[in-house]
Amino acid sequence: MTIPLTLSNLQAAFAAGTTVETIIEQVYERIAEVDDPSIFITLRDKADVLTEAATLGTYNPDKPLWGVPFAVKDNIDVAGLPTSAACPAYEYFPDKDAFVVGLLRAAGALVIGKTNLDQFATGLVGVRTPYGAPRNSVDPDIVPGGSSGGSGVSVGHGIVSFSLGTDTAGSGRVPAALNNIVGLKPTLGAWSARGSVPACRSVETISVFALTVEDAYKVYQVGAVYDALDAYAKPVVAGPIAAMRKNLKIGVPNGASIKFFGDDVQAASFENSLELLRDAGHKIVPIDFTPLYDIAQMLYEGAWVAERHSVIQDLLESNPEAVHPVTAKIIRHAESLSATDAFRGFYRLKELSRTAEPMLEGLDLLCVPTIPTFYSVSDLEADPVTPNSKFGTYTNFVNLLDMCGLAVPTPARSDGRPGSVTLLAKAGEDAFLAAVAAPLEYAGARTLGATEWPRPEPAAHAEIPEGYTKLAVCGAHMSGLPLNPQLTERGAYLLSQPRSAPYYSFHALAGAGVKRPGMVRTVEQQAAGIGLEVWAIPADTLGSFLMGIPAPLGLGKVELEDGSWVTGFICEAAGTTSSTDITELGDWRNYLNAQMESSEAAPS
Amino acid sequence: MTIPLTLSNLQAAFAAGTTVETIIEQVYERIAEVDDPSIFITLRDKADVLTEAATLGTYNPDKPLWGVPFAVKDNIDVAGLPTSAACPAYEYFPDKDAFVVGLLRAAGALVIGKTNLDQFATGLVGVRTPYGAPRNSVDPDIVPGGSSGGSGVSVGHGIVSFSLGTDTAGSGRVPAALNNIVGLKPTLGAWSARGSVPACRSVETISVFALTVEDAYKVYQVGAVYDALDAYAKPVVAGPIAAMRKNLKIGVPNGASIKFFGDDVQAASFENSLELLRDAGHKIVPIDFTPLYDIAQMLYEGAWVAERHSVIQDLLESNPEAVHPVTAKIIRHAESLSATDAFRGFYRLKELSRTAEPMLEGLDLLCVPTIPTFYSVSDLEADPVTPNSKFGTYTNFVNLLDMCGLAVPTPARSDGRPGSVTLLAKAGEDAFLAAVAAPLEYAGARTLGATEWPRPEPAAHAEIPEGYTKLAVCGAHMSGLPLNPQLTERGAYLLSQPRSAPYYSFHALAGAGVKRPGMVRTVEQQAAGIGLEVWAIPADTLGSFLMGIPAPLGLGKVELEDGSWVTGFICEAAGTTSSTDITELGDWRNYLNAQMESSEAAPS
Repeated sequence: MTIPLTLSNLQAAFAAGTTVETIIEQVYERIAEVDDPSIFITLRDKADVLTEAATLGTYNPDKPLWGVPFAVKDNIDVAGLPTSAACPAYEYFPDKDAFVVGLLRAAGALVIGKTNLDQFATGLVGVRTPYGAPRNSVDPDIVPGGSSGGSGVSVGHGIVSFSLGTDTAGSGRVPAALNNIVGLKPTLGAWSARGSVPACRSVETISVFALTVEDAYKVYQVGAVYDALDAYAKPVVAGPIAAMRKNLKIGVPNGASIKFFGDDVQAASFENSLELLRDAGHKIVPIDFTPLYDIAQMLYEGAWVAERHSVIQDLLESNPEAVHPVTAKIIRHAESLSATDAFRGFYRLKELSRTAEPMLEGLDLLCVPTIPTFYSVSDLEADPVTPNSKFGTYTNFVNLLDMCGLAVPTPARSDGRPGSVTLLAKAGEDAFLAAVAAPLEYAGARTLGATEWPRPEPAAHAEIPEGYTKLAVCGAHMSGLPLNPQLTERGAYLLSQPRSAPYYSFHALAGAGVKRPGMVRTVEQQAAGIGLEVWAIPADTLGSFLMGIPAPLGLGKVELEDGSWVTGFICEAAGTTSSTDITELGDWRNYLNAQMESSEAAPS
Repeated sequence: MTIPLTLSNLQAAFAAGTTVETIIEQVYERIAEVDDPSIFITLRDKADVLTEAATLGTYNPDKPLWGVPFAVKDNIDVAGLPTSAACPAYEYFPDKDAFVVGLLRAAGALVIGKTNLDQFATGLVGVRTPYGAPRNSVDPDIVPGGSSGGSGVSVGHGIVSFSLGTDTAGSGRVPAALNNIVGLKPTLGAWSARGSVPACRSVETISVFALTVEDAYKVYQVGAVYDALDAYAKPVVAGPIAAMRKNLKIGVPNGASIKFFGDDVQAASFENSLELLRDAGHKIVPIDFTPLYDIAQMLYEGAWVAERHSVIQDLLESNPEAVHPVTAKIIRHAESLSATDAFRGFYRLKELSRTAEPMLEGLDLLCVPTIPTFYSVSDLEADPVTPNSKFGTYTNFVNLLDMCGLAVPTPARSDGRPGSVTLLAKAGEDAFLAAVAAPLEYAGARTLGATEWPRPEPAAHAEIPEGYTKLAVCGAHMSGLPLNPQLTERGAYLLSQPRSAPYYSFHALAGAGVKRPGMVRTVEQQAAGIGLEVWAIPADTLGSFLMGIPAPLGLGKVELEDGSWVTGFICEAAGTTSSTDITELGDWRNYLNAQMESSEAAPS
């Protein structure tokens, strides 16, 4: 068997002495085995890649992508290789890498070649190309998906570890669903688009295909460097994937608005995925998707097609036959649109977005089928437009609403075709989506893409999400007690229920209002620690929480029974003079119960 | 003398028994005195206003605008009055108030009439109207300013307490400069635009003219209610005006890029205003305004004129003579613009904005002359376009960059004409601008608008800005000490240097690293309190600050010498066992000085 090209496996192999040359040989052997000349528009000579690999020196684990082979959609520049956007007449030879390609290569990744696409990234099928359609990696009868068809297929076949696509209408997600792989569509602007041929510059991003969510996210992190020279770039923090809290509210299309176009197998597969999310402790919230479908329609029927036009206007005028006839027909629609039409389109989008907002508020994310159903190559020969539109059912609206998306493989459908759902969240929540994906990705025993490679074990993650901090509470803030809403209103959630180290006296404080205890640090060891709850709370809300805490209480560092320290409630000793020492009860709930019993026992 | 119509004065008068009828009589007497039929396109019958006023009942101080007369630009709906946008052929009769008009009336304000404007809010001069140009309130030779000309003049004359304008290119600011009043241009989306005739819907807002910043801001607060039915509305918190921190960095056009078109008197007036800001403790930072001028040009030369076109396209086609010839010429430019041109315009704006960003980063706000110079009515008769363009020098770029703006009267120029600067800040910082304006507005003994009414005394404001909280520190976080950057990096600033209440022992804590003290609350009274610094710190940064504090220290409530309590450092008594008691030194700096002296005295 070949060496699985997942990042963790490659790194283990390199660390154990496998050479990068071995990996490159495997890549080219795999290309020969797959024997599909339509995957790459430009394939680098193996010798060139080996020469570049030699410059990497010995294995360097500090380079997160050291020796990792990848493919680049042919609308993204790689220095020295032509960029065609699948239009020979458009071809040019860039002398610089696209910004993100440069970052990935600096991290040690090796470009294998430039992949085929729906011309000018206009399409979701992967067959609108003069270079011949790549064959789907899982099943040659079905389309490869597009527009990033060659990129999706190259990862599905296990030729490369990852590949770059671009995504306006779903081009970074649909091929993932069709090839049993992961498609990560970053938050708009998180990845620089500099050095790529835009389709719709204002609602587009370069994207990542990989075999696992872990890999896709690692690649995303390497590329997520703010580029001040891309006017559409935004500073986005690509933090680590962390453990996910439970009880997320996940919006899904309701029964009246969900669309599978008669594909009951896909419907069952989606329902199975929702069950996995329910099993993971989340809440599935069916919502009416009509407003999102209305937004989706704007992408081709509204003014945005003029963005595509702005890229190839000169070519359409000077050399119209150079453009694929389906592509030309779609883009020429822009010639009938005025600037006034464009603004009317923006107004309409704003209004539709506003309609969708109340529905999306209160949800943590959306989960949709990545594609509603499958289409074959012959379906597309019969009708080059309708299946393409249907593929975009659950993808077209996403960039117009500035959401990030992650297409995740789920257990195979009952007919063996790949299952896939896409998780969608607000801009900037890419890491959050990667964390939510785990129960879907790791369900069942499955192989990666179209390969025989087993799915690796889930990686260990940080205990709490980026931007959260731990907070130990010992009294009225604990679950179900009167001040607990001060935590939950701030988005905090319970992590664990440890005891403190045995160096605290515990006091029921005097005073009016909500009854509260205080933990006073002692020099002498006590018989036992105090019962605590440790919560994860968004760090930026901790200040307002603190402001509401009256003397003698405060927030400091509390020692846990395992000797670690965590931010939590402390108490000034001077404030306990008229309090009751309840150290021996060891837990605030014990005290409350005792109080209740004694009041019940008291004569009424 | 008439009753000054500032809000605080009106409220005092109502509270003292003045009736709303008296005020309405004064309004109509003043209208008669001013005797300018071009101010109002529709003036309500006094009897109607009196009837409406009667429904207000007795004076109700809970209604913030009870009995306050105001005027409304005639592109904003008032139920039962026609809306014309200064184009008789466009006139319609709304049956509902515009959203913000409804809010103001619900707060007790009384509409007096609908004011004249540059037709379809296209212009900055106030003379592009078939209803005749209103006369400037300060000097009839100069133009009234526009497009909100009638609204600006009505406040300048003291006819009404405040008026509504609209602002795309500067229509809410230029008339303020020309009439010696305040023009508050809210953050885009903070005020609903529902029920107004848009000019450039995506970069426009309804605005406020008033006699003082205090009044303008109070009106703004009443109207700043999120309107889910306006697709361009945004939830914005219109918090109270607070005291302003010193040492703000204020960007101003540098010598090479500042433009007064030869008006040295205006240049001297602007320099005088900057001196007032320097005197208030701020830093003036000259910057190159060229990128902002480039952005300004986009508004009429780029695609945005198509927004205006989208409003009157039907009228231009069906009844072209109905449109003012200058207005028609400007707006018809959109007929030559394609959707592709529109997107190219957005790309260009994005790129220009990106160029301007590094320059604006690190600045707290901008201060510009509201207008570069003055133009007379005859100037405009000779050339209806050039003076208009020049008026927009410092206003056109503002909405394209999504900034909020506040035009503030400054001391009169040396020739007696009104001085005015505009403060500009990021979206949402309207309250911040109102706070910064005080030293400009209250400089010198001046009257309001064109009236004889004296400027009222400055109102008292909260001690710290919205979103900040006080934090008492007693050790290494004090000014100049090693951990002070943990405060300043978070945007904190020093408020005061009080002592604590005399109930704390003070300890130089043992341990490695930065030397730190701890204040331990005591039951017994001590000889004196401990020297503190109280800082104002953004509340949302307090959590990360807390996370860095090691045991035995924490944050709780510290009692000050005046008996008040403030969030600040506390210390667990158990953590002071190996520390040095320095209570009698009373201040951490005394201890550090003593340590230094003893180490200097020690044999080397």
